[in-house]
Amino acid sequence: MKKFINVPDSLLEDSLKGFAKAHADIVELNLQPHFIKRLQPAKPGKVVLISGGGSGHEPLHSGFVGLGMLDAVCPGQIFTSPTPDQMLAAAQAVDQGAGVLFIVKNYAGDVMNFEIAAEMFEAPNATVLVNDDVSLPKTHSIGRRGVAGTLIVEKMVGAAAEAGADLAACKALGDRVNEATASIGVALTSCTVPALGKPTFELGENEMEMGVGIHGERGRETVPLQSASEIVEQLAHAIDEELNPQPGQSVLLHVNGFGGTPLIELHLLYQLAAQHWEKRGLKIARSLVGNFTTSLDMAGASLTLTMLDEELIRLWDAPVNTAALRWGC
Amino acid sequence: MKKFINVPDSLLEDSLKGFAKAHADIVELNLQPHFIKRLQPAKPGKVVLISGGGSGHEPLHSGFVGLGMLDAVCPGQIFTSPTPDQMLAAAQAVDQGAGVLFIVKNYAGDVMNFEIAAEMFEAPNATVLVNDDVSLPKTHSIGRRGVAGTLIVEKMVGAAAEAGADLAACKALGDRVNEATASIGVALTSCTVPALGKPTFELGENEMEMGVGIHGERGRETVPLQSASEIVEQLAHAIDEELNPQPGQSVLLHVNGFGGTPLIELHLLYQLAAQHWEKRGLKIARSLVGNFTTSLDMAGASLTLTMLDEELIRLWDAPVNTAALRWGC
Repeated sequence: MKKFINVPDSLLEDSLKGFAKAHADIVELNLQPHFIKRLQPAKPGKVVLISGGGSGHEPLHSGFVGLGMLDAVCPGQIFTSPTPDQMLAAAQAVDQGAGVLFIVKNYAGDVMNFEIAAEMFEAPNATVLVNDDVSLPKTHSIGRRGVAGTLIVEKMVGAAAEAGADLAACKALGDRVNEATASIGVALTSCTVPALGKPTFELGENEMEMGVGIHGERGRETVPLQSASEIVEQLAHAIDEELNPQPGQSVLLHVNGFGGTPLIELHLLYQLAAQHWEKRGLKIARSLVGNFTTSLDMAGASLTLTMLDEELIRLWDAPVNTAALRWGC
Repeated sequence: MKKFINVPDSLLEDSLKGFAKAHADIVELNLQPHFIKRLQPAKPGKVVLISGGGSGHEPLHSGFVGLGMLDAVCPGQIFTSPTPDQMLAAAQAVDQGAGVLFIVKNYAGDVMNFEIAAEMFEAPNATVLVNDDVSLPKTHSIGRRGVAGTLIVEKMVGAAAEAGADLAACKALGDRVNEATASIGVALTSCTVPALGKPTFELGENEMEMGVGIHGERGRETVPLQSASEIVEQLAHAIDEELNPQPGQSVLLHVNGFGGTPLIELHLLYQLAAQHWEKRGLKIARSLVGNFTTSLDMAGASLTLTMLDEELIRLWDAPVNTAALRWGC
């Protein structure tokens, strides 16, 4: 296993400490239980946003804590759900009396534990479930996964909460952004979970995995490695099937790397994806390219499209000051 | 070769187009010859900063074009120096009458071509040579390489230029920041240059390459893979030998990934490196962690330390609005 690591058991805690120290102007780490919250608490009366999930997807979610986005996040062990006590402690620590919105990626463990925390938390709260991954059919038994679209929900709802939206409005907005968003990814390699010490699946030198999630699981199918243009056409087609965007539609195009793919390739994918949608008359109004929702060291990438309107553009553009997204501040 | 790519020949141009489109609010791409410049030109009378070098190090340098940092960059083919005509055209395009400062990483091809461009450019100009890589001895025949410290020079001189420093002051500051900066890196894997299609060197499953550069070349020595703590101690020791920082010294600690190493590992390295220097009484006044000066898909990382004073802290903190570094704007 070729990783910078001492022992797998301490990787997460040491890494969280490093993250919190490197960004001590923005965040604060709570150790028992683990959560990361804003250094400057939200103003009283603001709806607070809490997310979380298994680690290994950095900068998601810790990199999105700060003004204009999340108030706290609960990191689980790598690819493992955080526990209800983390979520409860985080909620109690950051609640400002206007309610807590949990933003949860649709994985069975995350959903269950956030539900337990929401029940235990004796104050107004609501949950937005993110399930933007269109590589699975809508009828999939445990539903579609939440992947790179999650940060778009977090950014837009974060802006609305900062501007004073109440809990019901934040919840409705989160659901709306999730509905307007579709993602699909492809892996060129597996990732290696430190505690396992070897790739979670094998891919031949001329194979890739289409419709992959972000937990080192196999995707929809293993197919021959194709050119970047062919890959983008397939990913974009799956998104078009879902969202059916019409000419003139403004969109946010997010090209996300899975951790092991460099920017030079991600910008190539972006160029090809932008061409695909501009050819169909869409307006690429906003863009985000980079490794944001990762799967440890996996080489691969996903495309995410969000259908925009004036309100969503305004929310996307609103000031944000986090480790991984920062503008207008 | 597991990359998102159509044909190697078009990768750079398509990727540059994607970069420029994704960041069309900040930069503009010139195609013949290739250079990227700020969308909003600098104000008249500002010293303009131009950098460049082979591609494959993204976000360096294109991600650092914008207010408070670079005015233009000239990307060469992957790991290949840009040509004098690119540099000359960029200089002529962004010159605001107060002179041009070329910021050049110390590689023979870059140095030669920037020298030719500087001679051809019939207006005041100066050059800062960055050579922060302490893995090579000071007496090395072609001198030490410029690596991850380059962005620190670019950021601080960029801030000074924005504040009205003249050409001589910008040149002197750049030299001073370079002198105050030391870097050293280690690779866990080689990178794969697209035109070559295979790793540029082989490393065994239990080997790593110490003192590596950013062009897929072999490093100082091939050694057995070690724990993150042992690696950090060796890297930090080499930097201490060079800078000899004294207790009480304020420093900027930059942990840089080479492209294939995820944030969870980089934050572990940061935590260990911060512990190393805090134990010696240094004050980690500023931090930067991420994949900033990359070597395509190489797994690996470097540590960079810059000795700070009040002026350098102020210049680091000054507003910057680029694709890869953004704060205060």
